[in-house]
Amino acid sequence: MTTTSGTSNGILKSAEEIAKAAKAAYEESQLVTTEQRNDVLESIRRALQASRDKVFEANRLDLEAAEKEVQAGRLSQQLVKRLDLTKGSKFDDMLQGISDVAALPDPTGHVTYATNLDEEMELYRVTCPIGVLLVIFESRPEVVVNITALAIKSGNAAILKGGKESAHTAALLTSIVQSALSTSPLSPSFIQSVQTRQEISALLSQDRYIDLVIPRGSNALVRSIQKASRIAVMGHPDGLCAVYLDASADGTKAVRIAVDAKCDYPSACNSAETLLVHESLITTVWPKVALALLDKGVQLRCDAASLAGLRSSSEVSNNKSFASLVREVTTEDYDTEFLDLILAVKVVSSLSQAVQHINAHSSHHTDAIVTENAENGTLFCRAVDSAGTFVNASTRFADGFRYGLGTEVGISTGRTHARGPVGLEGLVIYKYMIRSADGKGSIAGEFGTGKKPFLHQKIQGVTRLPF
Amino acid sequence: MTTTSGTSNGILKSAEEIAKAAKAAYEESQLVTTEQRNDVLESIRRALQASRDKVFEANRLDLEAAEKEVQAGRLSQQLVKRLDLTKGSKFDDMLQGISDVAALPDPTGHVTYATNLDEEMELYRVTCPIGVLLVIFESRPEVVVNITALAIKSGNAAILKGGKESAHTAALLTSIVQSALSTSPLSPSFIQSVQTRQEISALLSQDRYIDLVIPRGSNALVRSIQKASRIAVMGHPDGLCAVYLDASADGTKAVRIAVDAKCDYPSACNSAETLLVHESLITTVWPKVALALLDKGVQLRCDAASLAGLRSSSEVSNNKSFASLVREVTTEDYDTEFLDLILAVKVVSSLSQAVQHINAHSSHHTDAIVTENAENGTLFCRAVDSAGTFVNASTRFADGFRYGLGTEVGISTGRTHARGPVGLEGLVIYKYMIRSADGKGSIAGEFGTGKKPFLHQKIQGVTRLPF
Repeated sequence: MTTTSGTSNGILKSAEEIAKAAKAAYEESQLVTTEQRNDVLESIRRALQASRDKVFEANRLDLEAAEKEVQAGRLSQQLVKRLDLTKGSKFDDMLQGISDVAALPDPTGHVTYATNLDEEMELYRVTCPIGVLLVIFESRPEVVVNITALAIKSGNAAILKGGKESAHTAALLTSIVQSALSTSPLSPSFIQSVQTRQEISALLSQDRYIDLVIPRGSNALVRSIQKASRIAVMGHPDGLCAVYLDASADGTKAVRIAVDAKCDYPSACNSAETLLVHESLITTVWPKVALALLDKGVQLRCDAASLAGLRSSSEVSNNKSFASLVREVTTEDYDTEFLDLILAVKVVSSLSQAVQHINAHSSHHTDAIVTENAENGTLFCRAVDSAGTFVNASTRFADGFRYGLGTEVGISTGRTHARGPVGLEGLVIYKYMIRSADGKGSIAGEFGTGKKPFLHQKIQGVTRLPF
Repeated sequence: MTTTSGTSNGILKSAEEIAKAAKAAYEESQLVTTEQRNDVLESIRRALQASRDKVFEANRLDLEAAEKEVQAGRLSQQLVKRLDLTKGSKFDDMLQGISDVAALPDPTGHVTYATNLDEEMELYRVTCPIGVLLVIFESRPEVVVNITALAIKSGNAAILKGGKESAHTAALLTSIVQSALSTSPLSPSFIQSVQTRQEISALLSQDRYIDLVIPRGSNALVRSIQKASRIAVMGHPDGLCAVYLDASADGTKAVRIAVDAKCDYPSACNSAETLLVHESLITTVWPKVALALLDKGVQLRCDAASLAGLRSSSEVSNNKSFASLVREVTTEDYDTEFLDLILAVKVVSSLSQAVQHINAHSSHHTDAIVTENAENGTLFCRAVDSAGTFVNASTRFADGFRYGLGTEVGISTGRTHARGPVGLEGLVIYKYMIRSADGKGSIAGEFGTGKKPFLHQKIQGVTRLPF
């Protein structure tokens, strides 16, 4: 492993050394308490507060470099906006975010299974941190602080890699965090950052030390990491969500939900990319929905049946945007995450055809049905194999904060560990502890057929470890 | 994909076709109820019961081939024993196993989070199957039926690959299962089997259709699959467990637990491979423990300090087995899973040194402390980063049945999804469902700063989905 990285004290470290240091910091932290971790978070907040001017200075270096890239046409103005930590209340919001995370309930130390194995032998399953996280994200520098807070709160060590555009800001933020850690019960290596893609690719093979990779960013980024890594990856390459208007769909609900799911924030992963319309609605509800979408400037890519429905409605076909915004769909459109004001439309002849289309084409993120038929709502929720299945609610609700999880580590379209919006619970696993008070010590050889039976008597009401 | 496999009806299928068929069978099964799945299990039991003679015939073919391999010195007699389904009550036990799994509580359909997002909008998190499992195991043919039962009970489709030595038996068992499925609400492709290693390697790249790989078998098998797969893998390559005798260890407990952990079943993954001894016990408890282990024929590989302790005890050094069973340890011994009557011994000067040794050398499976000091017990349980940490109990208790999980899908030393002995709970994930009864349908654009707040009011007492 020859890829190296600068650290705050100027010593170059290889990917293996970084990963090993993170695991060591994690192992050393096992006895650090919830209260101590919360105190660490507050001391990081204070350290950042005190370094505000320096952070703004580093941020200006990143912004200047980014502006040059924009002028050269290599970067979008949009990205520069995201880089800027000096605007409005962004910096203070970042600091408040630390306190908000500190105030969340501790996800570790919960007893989720407790049983007496024998008269004097208890078994407890207790939530605990996973270990070492590798988190890869794009250009917003405040994510460094956000992830730091989530990692410390949940007891996981973390290695962070932000977008190269925010390199100065991210490096300074990490170094402030590490200084604060150096006078805390946690090791400074509990939070580390790396700068280059080469380091990431070297880190992805450190499966001995790194336990979970969380890529947050573009489809291409997430896919490339899923492909390269032998370590568990939590994320979502795509958000290809669908809204299905069932035969019994209420017109008002259909319009509101289709418009919200598509237009509320088109570049979000929980926005709708596909609209499925039951054939019975072609000349009734569908033209109303289409009109509302055209009013919002949504391009409608229609199959033959839905197009025929629009053509048969004089209100739609005479709409000023009809010519410019309505066009024929292509097969690829049903597999495309537009992240824009574009919607692929398809007419289906039954609920079951809608479900089949969604299971075949959606990214298993979030899909919604609009229906007045409760049974169809239930069938849809059960049969659609996605992380979120909604009845008469917009796909846009799929979000950790909206779900009430307190925070959002990411959204997972995976099917193991965590699925859908992931809160702090997604950063913990559990371990089993046995405590025997048997006078002679408990041995397995005394149990089994013809010997002692296991009690397997649930211990009621224990939510925290009693020892 | 050109690797192909025979199926019960003689048509050759590629790995991709097999994986795709499994996912299709899974998706089609979403509306199959718990009761129907239990009925399917009983019909499989009846079908197997009716085909007993045929199964024995196929098993005899495997046994004959295996005997030839034994005579040629290419296979152990031990393995032939494991292959044999005709011996004793093995076949009936296998059938009873199906009913036992059917009788377990359904792991799906549990509501684990329920909250009102708005006056008339409810969010439920509900456990559901993962999707498609690829299960790879060694030669015991009854595992085909065991895994089939676990997969159907938990609602997961499965692709099975057993050891090549049981090919005839496994193929027949699968074909009986598939016949039973063909008259059930589940598709025959819900359970499929493949025969060759090439097929496995082709299946490991089918991450679009396969959601979880469960390798059960040798260290080499599990490692090679972890290395080759981009799909989540649940398993444990090693079981390198340690027992630590703390300064305050009770002599009787130390002897009983060390002997049980090493000798109860030396080839099991939860057997101890390393004994750590606090330096204060070198001439007191340690010689007693050593004597008991020598009596059981355990080879002791000792560091200098533990060896000196034994030499200083005339009872030990005069023991008839001393010369043949006591020897010096090598560094590799502390990283070796002996799976035999061999124990690596090391003297440590503190609890913290014991913890550090374990975290550095154990496979994070299960480790135990023998201590009369409750605080040290707690520190050990928290600081040792393993799936199981036990106080005054043998590592041999780490087992799904012993834990009271009802069954054991496998044991995981991974740190995401499931850890330690895994019951049916390890074969489920969850999805989020929103049901809105808002008269206009629920849209995200109406919530947020300056707009409607989210209620986030927990719905109490809901354990099953109310719709």
